[in-house]
Amino acid sequence: MAATRRPGRNHLFIPGPTNIPDRVLRAMHVPSEDHRSPDFPALVKPLFQDAKIVFGSEAGTIIFYPSSGTGIWESALANTLCRGDKVLTARYGQFSHLWVDMAQRLGLDVIVQDEAWGTGADPEKIGEALRADTDHKIKAVMVVHNETATGVTSDIGAVRKAIDAAGHPALLFVDGISSIGSLPFKMDEWKVDCAIAGSQKGFMLPAGLGVLCASAKAIKISEGGGAGGNDRLGHVYFAWSDQLKQNPTGYFPYTPPLPLLYGLREALTCIREEGIDNVYHRHHVLAEATRQAVAAWGLKTCAKEPKWNSDTVTAILAPEGVDAAKIIKHAYDRYNLSLGAGLSQVAGKVFRIGHLGDLNELSLLGAIAGAEMAMIDCGVHVTPGSGVAAASSYLRENPLSRG
Amino acid sequence: MAATRRPGRNHLFIPGPTNIPDRVLRAMHVPSEDHRSPDFPALVKPLFQDAKIVFGSEAGTIIFYPSSGTGIWESALANTLCRGDKVLTARYGQFSHLWVDMAQRLGLDVIVQDEAWGTGADPEKIGEALRADTDHKIKAVMVVHNETATGVTSDIGAVRKAIDAAGHPALLFVDGISSIGSLPFKMDEWKVDCAIAGSQKGFMLPAGLGVLCASAKAIKISEGGGAGGNDRLGHVYFAWSDQLKQNPTGYFPYTPPLPLLYGLREALTCIREEGIDNVYHRHHVLAEATRQAVAAWGLKTCAKEPKWNSDTVTAILAPEGVDAAKIIKHAYDRYNLSLGAGLSQVAGKVFRIGHLGDLNELSLLGAIAGAEMAMIDCGVHVTPGSGVAAASSYLRENPLSRG
Amino acid sequence: MAATRRPGRNHLFIPGPTNIPDRVLRAMHVPSEDHRSPDFPALVKPLFQDAKIVFGSEAGTIIFYPSSGTGIWESALANTLCRGDKVLTARYGQFSHLWVDMAQRLGLDVIVQDEAWGTGADPEKIGEALRADTDHKIKAVMVVHNETATGVTSDIGAVRKAIDAAGHPALLFVDGISSIGSLPFKMDEWKVDCAIAGSQKGFMLPAGLGVLCASAKAIKISEGGGAGGNDRLGHVYFAWSDQLKQNPTGYFPYTPPLPLLYGLREALTCIREEGIDNVYHRHHVLAEATRQAVAAWGLKTCAKEPKWNSDTVTAILAPEGVDAAKIIKHAYDRYNLSLGAGLSQVAGKVFRIGHLGDLNELSLLGAIAGAEMAMIDCGVHVTPGSGVAAASSYLRENPLSRG
Amino acid sequence: MAATRRPGRNHLFIPGPTNIPDRVLRAMHVPSEDHRSPDFPALVKPLFQDAKIVFGSEAGTIIFYPSSGTGIWESALANTLCRGDKVLTARYGQFSHLWVDMAQRLGLDVIVQDEAWGTGADPEKIGEALRADTDHKIKAVMVVHNETATGVTSDIGAVRKAIDAAGHPALLFVDGISSIGSLPFKMDEWKVDCAIAGSQKGFMLPAGLGVLCASAKAIKISEGGGAGGNDRLGHVYFAWSDQLKQNPTGYFPYTPPLPLLYGLREALTCIREEGIDNVYHRHHVLAEATRQAVAAWGLKTCAKEPKWNSDTVTAILAPEGVDAAKIIKHAYDRYNLSLGAGLSQVAGKVFRIGHLGDLNELSLLGAIAGAEMAMIDCGVHVTPGSGVAAASSYLRENPLSRG
Repeated sequence: MAATRRPGRNHLFIPGPTNIPDRVLRAMHVPSEDHRSPDFPALVKPLFQDAKIVFGSEAGTIIFYPSSGTGIWESALANTLCRGDKVLTARYGQFSHLWVDMAQRLGLDVIVQDEAWGTGADPEKIGEALRADTDHKIKAVMVVHNETATGVTSDIGAVRKAIDAAGHPALLFVDGISSIGSLPFKMDEWKVDCAIAGSQKGFMLPAGLGVLCASAKAIKISEGGGAGGNDRLGHVYFAWSDQLKQNPTGYFPYTPPLPLLYGLREALTCIREEGIDNVYHRHHVLAEATRQAVAAWGLKTCAKEPKWNSDTVTAILAPEGVDAAKIIKHAYDRYNLSLGAGLSQVAGKVFRIGHLGDLNELSLLGAIAGAEMAMIDCGVHVTPGSGVAAASSYLRENPLSRG
Repeated sequence: MAATRRPGRNHLFIPGPTNIPDRVLRAMHVPSEDHRSPDFPALVKPLFQDAKIVFGSEAGTIIFYPSSGTGIWESALANTLCRGDKVLTARYGQFSHLWVDMAQRLGLDVIVQDEAWGTGADPEKIGEALRADTDHKIKAVMVVHNETATGVTSDIGAVRKAIDAAGHPALLFVDGISSIGSLPFKMDEWKVDCAIAGSQKGFMLPAGLGVLCASAKAIKISEGGGAGGNDRLGHVYFAWSDQLKQNPTGYFPYTPPLPLLYGLREALTCIREEGIDNVYHRHHVLAEATRQAVAAWGLKTCAKEPKWNSDTVTAILAPEGVDAAKIIKHAYDRYNLSLGAGLSQVAGKVFRIGHLGDLNELSLLGAIAGAEMAMIDCGVHVTPGSGVAAASSYLRENPLSRG
Repeated sequence: MAATRRPGRNHLFIPGPTNIPDRVLRAMHVPSEDHRSPDFPALVKPLFQDAKIVFGSEAGTIIFYPSSGTGIWESALANTLCRGDKVLTARYGQFSHLWVDMAQRLGLDVIVQDEAWGTGADPEKIGEALRADTDHKIKAVMVVHNETATGVTSDIGAVRKAIDAAGHPALLFVDGISSIGSLPFKMDEWKVDCAIAGSQKGFMLPAGLGVLCASAKAIKISEGGGAGGNDRLGHVYFAWSDQLKQNPTGYFPYTPPLPLLYGLREALTCIREEGIDNVYHRHHVLAEATRQAVAAWGLKTCAKEPKWNSDTVTAILAPEGVDAAKIIKHAYDRYNLSLGAGLSQVAGKVFRIGHLGDLNELSLLGAIAGAEMAMIDCGVHVTPGSGVAAASSYLRENPLSRG
Repeated sequence: MAATRRPGRNHLFIPGPTNIPDRVLRAMHVPSEDHRSPDFPALVKPLFQDAKIVFGSEAGTIIFYPSSGTGIWESALANTLCRGDKVLTARYGQFSHLWVDMAQRLGLDVIVQDEAWGTGADPEKIGEALRADTDHKIKAVMVVHNETATGVTSDIGAVRKAIDAAGHPALLFVDGISSIGSLPFKMDEWKVDCAIAGSQKGFMLPAGLGVLCASAKAIKISEGGGAGGNDRLGHVYFAWSDQLKQNPTGYFPYTPPLPLLYGLREALTCIREEGIDNVYHRHHVLAEATRQAVAAWGLKTCAKEPKWNSDTVTAILAPEGVDAAKIIKHAYDRYNLSLGAGLSQVAGKVFRIGHLGDLNELSLLGAIAGAEMAMIDCGVHVTPGSGVAAASSYLRENPLSRG
């Protein structure tokens, strides 16, 4: 039986993995190399410095793992906390939920602040909980910067202020998987202790390389051994110590995924060439254009107020009575458009347009047109062309680059 | 000085080179090979048969040259005609003009039927000229199937009928560079003697491989040596004889461009998997959607009547007083959209949207949105979203594949 | 300052990462895809079945992780053992050493049988230890199949027999990182419970994908929750349970490294096309040719007896008074030949020739010639051409393929 | 029926196409682009200057054609000569033979000086013929610099001296297809009027791009129109005039083969990074090592005296009674080694080792080992290892780079 070819390219508008620039794909097309050769550090060493640009950090330490983002989350917890330690977190979507789940499974004592899906972390409530924790039992505050499931961005700077105002020494862990490299991130200014990223989002690479940026404070704690060694969350692969021993010489304690290292080098060059501020600005403009289309369609986003709007992904509420999953499936089957599905609480209620990574106006407008067509085909009452009209008018007024 | 990176991909909507499917690009990423190895014919031989699918031919003979399409034109003339021979052709655009020019420079006696740009070959006039040529001095009729400059397709079947009705033995040469592989082409049914194609259009490959399909009649004449050898249009590289000697064994008289051979094999597989009739249908639907957008904008195509409409490229007349070149430049600079320029007579008057090759709805809608935005930015009065609204409504009703 | 280009290719003869076939590199050159799309399982599902060929397993369950081999080791321990559990292992090289270290760091109680480097696991001693463990405190036996540091292969079949003869229920864990896909491996026959492999060796891929094959017994234990949940080696990323929930439907609990999945599919096709028995035979013939060269040079391998010879890597003892590290550096600097270094106990004493992965006679002979030249340049008394003479004579008599 | 995979890479030692550096292959993996875009000249313009490095020219003009080398030969003749013009050439191998054939088929009056195969052009005889041509009827002298069929390099500097000594104004055309980029070439010093190269040799690219370097004198003559236009060798595709009109602006009169342009840019960067003098030196050292192997085997080269030795290809005479074609076939079938066949007069008598392009010591030694094994298998009496011993001893003493 012959395959049936779908003409043209797939239009990938999920919130990651993101579109990979051709030059990055090219850079990854490499033969094997000896990762112990004298020439290898010339590739590796600059990556530890250059990757910091997207974290907004000078002082932090970068650690790479062949791993997805989940592994990096785990490394943050396993290297700094002991079994039974108390951590504080807010939960307002699938990814913040999963982080809670992980912490619990690792044996941590997790204080969960549940927020409505469509909102984010509440700095006031966090400050309150910390102030109440007078004997500093809470060892870490964990926040998901950009909740991919609902298209909501939390204000990490405000969380930091709340921690400081409470005079609390807790570590601050931030999941920046769907924000870092796309949204402004200020590791040093916000005094984040562990910032967690994955290659397949703002880095514009395939999945497979987890990236951590750790503060000096986090590193120091990881070295301390904890109050009684056998209570530490014993991990070896994700133990930073093995990395920290070898990385400074330009090597790794394991065999690194060579294509991703070359890809990372090229992706960071792309970011530098565009300018990190232009990258952030572009994400904002494309996101706002998407929101203009949503408004023109007469629909609502999952984000409950503009202040929660994410500039990397927009979760759109399907009108009452329409199955969002059907729209997604139809968009894929008929128009080769990949949209993000609603997860968990919002399954079937939302579809998501990811607008992060290597993207420009016309690609986005194609996707908006496609979403519109899929909705109409599925019975949603939307004026044909209305989304593109609104988005394109906005885009004409707002250049992607600030020059 | 650092380069400035443009984010996202270029939107390529010129009438060739066309977008290359990823899998075809991949197939071309090959190390060098011995083109005299025992295994080489296994790659080469099927290409001579398989390439015929896009010519609508069983009886023809395929010849490949490392060359652009211009070289293939020349090979058609050089192998079958003698200096001073009379040929008949119609001229209605830049590419038909260039073919006239070539024939004249080669020393042929060219009878030119000038038609208005925006129309095509006139079978009646051709028939008339042939009937008047009672002693059969006219050795060949040359027709450009799809005039890329104006977005006009001529009716080759009707030309063949006119030739037959005149009972004239002239050869029929057809430039199918921007039609073959995209528009229905019926080499055998139309009794075309030389059909000329280039890799960078319907074949969805980079430029560099010229493809000819020759009839048995043309081949026979090429072997004849002409009425007095030294009057033949002496060519060596483009002499078919060298090819015809080696090709049947799976080899070439020159070193072939290996990546293009592998690419061709993959591209032909793509075409087979989609189905050649689906390929033609898809080109028609995307072209019609484009024309719907043009109509919604209140603009006119260069093609003067619907019967001339090309399904591979639409040339759009800019409104009076607006410089089409400015629209094109703006579309490229601001939106990374590559449109085709007006050439020669229509320079500055038209811009062209190429809609051939590996393409689907949402890519096209992105381009339509971009053309619209560029026009508005340049002062054309167009309702935002109108083009996409019209095109997308048409596309929703008309699936690309007939299943 | 301009870079200085080294002409020609690097000759990679380390024991992994191995050379990647061009077609596998090509297969990995892919754009991003939605790993939740309806089409995704068509890629993924067959991999779980097809990958078993190199494990010699029908009954096992394959689990993939974006990870190096070290992570897979850890997953084997973390999913089946509890803190304080007793495990038995033999140590005879750097990689068996590292496994001991990991087990200890994870809080296991490790019984180590030290064997001379250059030998391997001693089934008799293992049997003895098991027979002595009358109350079955030993939960697992851990064996490194092919000790990459010394070029030694242990007899896993014999270890199994020893376990069975002792009537002991311990699990059998085998590190097959530098053997699986290159040396005969019989998971089912040997009743291995966890077989551990990495993409960058016999799979002929870049590093980044860890591959585990687990027995039904191991899976069952992993599901049991242990004798008191909080004693389990709490891990989340490497918890099989999350994988086992999603894998049967063709999805993953994390974003998978897409290029490696496509690469794996192509690499498995390569293996099938060559025939797994031919793959094993080829590795044996190339290894034997290497040993013939070593003998002709008048040198000795690290493997103390022929029965320990590894067919994937040969560790060669430099003559007294010659620094093996100098030979390796010179081979790289002068001849662009990458050899493996001696590790730990044998640092400076051995250099290693990896002869696994995608390789044939002439590549190996080039490397043998290069090793010879480097040795002579470094003052080793070796007859020029002697290694190639011996190896090539053997290779002429012993075809790579058994047809 | 499943394909049978051959493990490892093919060892390509034909005199072209040559091995392509990985980074050049990568550079060619590009999507389509508008070859009329404002950005295009930034790619194209430097190529016209940078390509001159391999011609040893500052004053010349580069012209590129999508074509094999044969087309470039034809363009040299067609743009400067008229039908019936007299040209002088020497013939001493298959490629000099083919050039004679082309000139004759184009209607030129060719004076052929036949030299023994295994020797080259005789400057004295050429000088003699020119001196005898007192009324300067001879319009051009055509010389094949490196006769690929016999592994013979002619002395172009000496030919130039002979022309000058004769005080003759004839143009000097040099086929440098298998020399340019590999052997020292001094276009300006030797006052060559047309130097002809193809992408698939010293440029380390796939075939498909012909490269010409023309002197000001040749260009001027091409513009002259000849003594009576209709006697010119009418060609259009290969007419320089169309190129010369567009090239200075960074465009082409035809659609250029984009991947080859990007590949050329990268290949020229490779050459610059290695240093053109190092490139020449490396070719000499590798060639001399090959000849040392031949001598150690007790065999003879086709080149009759050392002064004719080519540094890009060595043609080796099989011993009496042994069919060289059998050796070649066996080397390919059994060892995946591609050697060059004997052509025409020397078919079955010689096999050729190409040692040009991107190559280093160990690749060559692998090929020498393979040739030796193939010969022994075919009954040639050769001491195993003797070729590698001799070649490697030479290579140890003679570094590839002069630093």
